[in-house]
Amino acid sequence: MSIQSQNNPVPIISLTTDFGQKDGYVGAMQGVILSICPRAVISTLSHDIPAQDVQAAAFVLYQACGYYPPQAVHCAVVDPGVGSERRAVAVATSHGTFVGPDNGVFSLVLSAGQVDVIAAVSLTNPAYQRPAVSATFHGRDIFAPAAAHLAAGVPLAELGPPANDLVQLEFIAKSRQEDRQHAGRVIHIDRFGNIILDLTGADITDPRRIRFKVGDRLIESLSYTFADVAEGEVLAYVGSTRDHIAIALRNGNAARTLGIQLGDTIEISYGEKAIENCEA
Amino acid sequence: MSIQSQNNPVPIISLTTDFGQKDGYVGAMQGVILSICPRAVISTLSHDIPAQDVQAAAFVLYQACGYYPPQAVHCAVVDPGVGSERRAVAVATSHGTFVGPDNGVFSLVLSAGQVDVIAAVSLTNPAYQRPAVSATFHGRDIFAPAAAHLAAGVPLAELGPPANDLVQLEFIAKSRQEDRQHAGRVIHIDRFGNIILDLTGADITDPRRIRFKVGDRLIESLSYTFADVAEGEVLAYVGSTRDHIAIALRNGNAARTLGIQLGDTIEISYGEKAIENCEA
Amino acid sequence: MSIQSQNNPVPIISLTTDFGQKDGYVGAMQGVILSICPRAVISTLSHDIPAQDVQAAAFVLYQACGYYPPQAVHCAVVDPGVGSERRAVAVATSHGTFVGPDNGVFSLVLSAGQVDVIAAVSLTNPAYQRPAVSATFHGRDIFAPAAAHLAAGVPLAELGPPANDLVQLEFIAKSRQEDRQHAGRVIHIDRFGNIILDLTGADITDPRRIRFKVGDRLIESLSYTFADVAEGEVLAYVGSTRDHIAIALRNGNAARTLGIQLGDTIEISYGEKAIENCEA
Repeated sequence: MSIQSQNNPVPIISLTTDFGQKDGYVGAMQGVILSICPRAVISTLSHDIPAQDVQAAAFVLYQACGYYPPQAVHCAVVDPGVGSERRAVAVATSHGTFVGPDNGVFSLVLSAGQVDVIAAVSLTNPAYQRPAVSATFHGRDIFAPAAAHLAAGVPLAELGPPANDLVQLEFIAKSRQEDRQHAGRVIHIDRFGNIILDLTGADITDPRRIRFKVGDRLIESLSYTFADVAEGEVLAYVGSTRDHIAIALRNGNAARTLGIQLGDTIEISYGEKAIENCEA
Repeated sequence: MSIQSQNNPVPIISLTTDFGQKDGYVGAMQGVILSICPRAVISTLSHDIPAQDVQAAAFVLYQACGYYPPQAVHCAVVDPGVGSERRAVAVATSHGTFVGPDNGVFSLVLSAGQVDVIAAVSLTNPAYQRPAVSATFHGRDIFAPAAAHLAAGVPLAELGPPANDLVQLEFIAKSRQEDRQHAGRVIHIDRFGNIILDLTGADITDPRRIRFKVGDRLIESLSYTFADVAEGEVLAYVGSTRDHIAIALRNGNAARTLGIQLGDTIEISYGEKAIENCEA
Repeated sequence: MSIQSQNNPVPIISLTTDFGQKDGYVGAMQGVILSICPRAVISTLSHDIPAQDVQAAAFVLYQACGYYPPQAVHCAVVDPGVGSERRAVAVATSHGTFVGPDNGVFSLVLSAGQVDVIAAVSLTNPAYQRPAVSATFHGRDIFAPAAAHLAAGVPLAELGPPANDLVQLEFIAKSRQEDRQHAGRVIHIDRFGNIILDLTGADITDPRRIRFKVGDRLIESLSYTFADVAEGEVLAYVGSTRDHIAIALRNGNAARTLGIQLGDTIEISYGEKAIENCEA
């Protein structure tokens, strides 16, 4: 089953890139999409991914894609390997179709149990590419046309042969091997400086006894929201991104204040006694 | 009367947040909106409000909302109090419906005489929220769904009970108490470094005699536009935002050059003699 | 022939400005457009043009406009001369209509042989402007309304009298006078630090013998894509923007590393012997 079997839903294409908006790259992609599928609703997911940071793009897709309607096509172009042998792929799932380089950018969404993969193809059919494909801008010449044709109802199998063994990001495998009872790893730091861990609420075996050591601060409870602590205080809470544990500083920037960076490990322990009035 | 009594206008939702675009938060909100109201035109008003700066968001809404069609729903999420007791509200007016936290973010638009308030409600009806409401991301779980349902035609009263006594920003009251004959307060500094005052053209009793003291510079007339002065010169003029007086540096950044910050007071006086060739 | 003679295509308006998105200026323009043409698809080409940098805007339009459908109206507002005698214009071409100040912002697109000019008018008819035109924000009061009316099908000639002798950017003329066999000029540096020259692939008489001197580095071949060199190595290649020659640093920022700035000259020579395995 592919998206076009639905009853003509509004075609929706989300874009996630590291292009910024000071150049004409995003405009070129939008122009290509609107030329192929003028009714498409183009939704900017992010153009502010740090340059060539595939992991950051993977996380942002994970934060957002599940909230779009199932017919959405999510086109992500963070593509340091453009023009090399890395494949260009489209992956149809139970909730959204993903179009981009096969460099792991979709591996977090695809491995998190959010969606079931239905089929994946290599984008090799020139009929669904721009007539002249450049060596350095596949976003415009391969991915935008593929996304637009898929949104317009072209069956996935038309775009190329099946693609197996999609690339996985290394941090996902690493994260799985770790001892979740004693440590969490920082997988994202957001605009506000909130620190998001690879642990979710389900990993916390006893929320009333959990303790976090973050930099030089000890957090001795799991809070419900920012307002549970005083201004300038640090808190841990079950965050809004798929129940991942997050660490914040009320009305401040936790990562900057505590000197925490992406990939850092946060020590976890369980106290002897439960602390009262703390919420899971 | 609420928006759905109109003859099926295009549903329009503007978004104003402090989320930036490096995370997936804006995408999640767009996804929620498109899931509920796929025909919605989502218009980015700003995602670059400084983090948690409610006053800046209030000003940006004031600059822009009046130019949208009356059916537009303006959803603003600058929400330092998320998860606390602060109310979530929707306010229907003669020109646009406003959805966001009740923290004063709409108080400038609502108090400026631009629009008449028709009704306001507390967004408490879970039927118009996401099934699981997080403690820290009401933009996705409460405000985006409310905006989408309102844009799709759900009557305001369905979303919750009436909400009275909406929160006002403090600076509005302060600004009103001041002596407009002797001082203006800086309420916004724009991207170009233009300095916008809380005074409007109507506050200037004699445009031909007005003088402004800004940092160490004396401005002795009211100009019509940038080109009225030489490059590098400072000018005061009736700005494009609702006739507010603004101070600029031709082809330069006035705020940076003059060392002016938000909230600063600018001295005003009226000269003895009118200066010729100066325009109001 | 103007756009409205086509069979009711989706109205598309691209926006290119130096407004950033922290103020309400972009929102005001979008509101004006949606009030006049609610069905318009508004496509953000860029709001991150450096303040008042007409040349940068001209380049970004050149990178992107050709990929939009021919009915698109491209509205560009980088307008240091707003309120002065500079004209406001609309230019209908074989591929897109251009609306903005007559300050050269469209001169690169119009002179590059991409499009044929059909007609140009001065935007003087008040029926297609906002009722009160400010002195400092023609984006909202003149250009957005003109773009919306044109996208909605108003004939170009309705908007004002013919406009001849559109302003050209100086760098275009300069660039043409140069000796393309010995030097290239930097006309754009993109977000990644890639350096784009005013030379195109067609200017390179012998791709197998070409040499580039960039800062202290000598590049002795023309590469196909980034992956042709090792990480940290510099390469020259035929870029994705209309075959312009570009210089990049694999997985790094070439302009920053090599100390190259806009307008710099890059020395070119032709080696005695062809280098093998180098691709044009």
